[in-house]
Amino acid sequence: MKKKRKSSVLVAIDGSEYSEKAFEYACKLSISKETPLLITNIVEEHATIGYSILKELKNSSKELLIKYETRAESLGVRSVASIQSVGNPAEEILKIANRKKIDTLVIGSRGKYGTSRDMLGGTSYKLVHYSICTVTVVK
Amino acid sequence: MKKKRKSSVLVAIDGSEYSEKAFEYACKLSISKETPLLITNIVEEHATIGYSILKELKNSSKELLIKYETRAESLGVRSVASIQSVGNPAEEILKIANRKKIDTLVIGSRGKYGTSRDMLGGTSYKLVHYSICTVTVVK
Repeated sequence: MKKKRKSSVLVAIDGSEYSEKAFEYACKLSISKETPLLITNIVEEHATIGYSILKELKNSSKELLIKYETRAESLGVRSVASIQSVGNPAEEILKIANRKKIDTLVIGSRGKYGTSRDMLGGTSYKLVHYSICTVTVVK
Repeated sequence: MKKKRKSSVLVAIDGSEYSEKAFEYACKLSISKETPLLITNIVEEHATIGYSILKELKNSSKELLIKYETRAESLGVRSVASIQSVGNPAEEILKIANRKKIDTLVIGSRGKYGTSRDMLGGTSYKLVHYSICTVTVVK
């Protein structure tokens, strides 16, 4: 049986044009629903990435998250937090959504992650498919 | 280039448990966004369905739409309308979304239409994939 979930919004950003749209949508949704907004960015891990490059990627990701947190606050979102994770984007986003008992996950229809599947990116496709919470695909 | 779209919400209902959740989500979204709600139900057309059965299906569909229109109004949605169409559910819903310049399409993760694709129904899958407007898959 599905557990009752707290009402909060999670948006996954990756710096792409599509995630920018998703971010704006998530801010509006969070304001209108009067619920907290959680912003996440996933650092993709590959076997070929060395420690120093991974450290650099994590720092850039942290900067991106701080930038978006500040923007969300300036747009009027009352409660904002961010979370960084390392690994496969779809898997990590699903884990965060479950752990944080997210009500609505907001994603772009494509991102910089993975290859495209016609009009829907690979990561977005997996998230819509396997998420147990409501998913909004912003186009 | 994508046309600028008017802000209205379209929800596709089919009488299933999943579309019931989608309907409730769409009403809340419509109220919080202060935008009109359009409700649709598609009568599936098959070559084997005769004229009298099709007429009966259309009547049931009309009754369902009236029922949901009344419910939306009683839930506080200010502007509600409904539209019926006959044909392939995904194709008809996409046509309506385009014709009516819909901003957000709300659907259940599964419905009574088509076969399931793991956690996502066939019609829902096509809608997320091919829609040019934002799609919310309610789970």
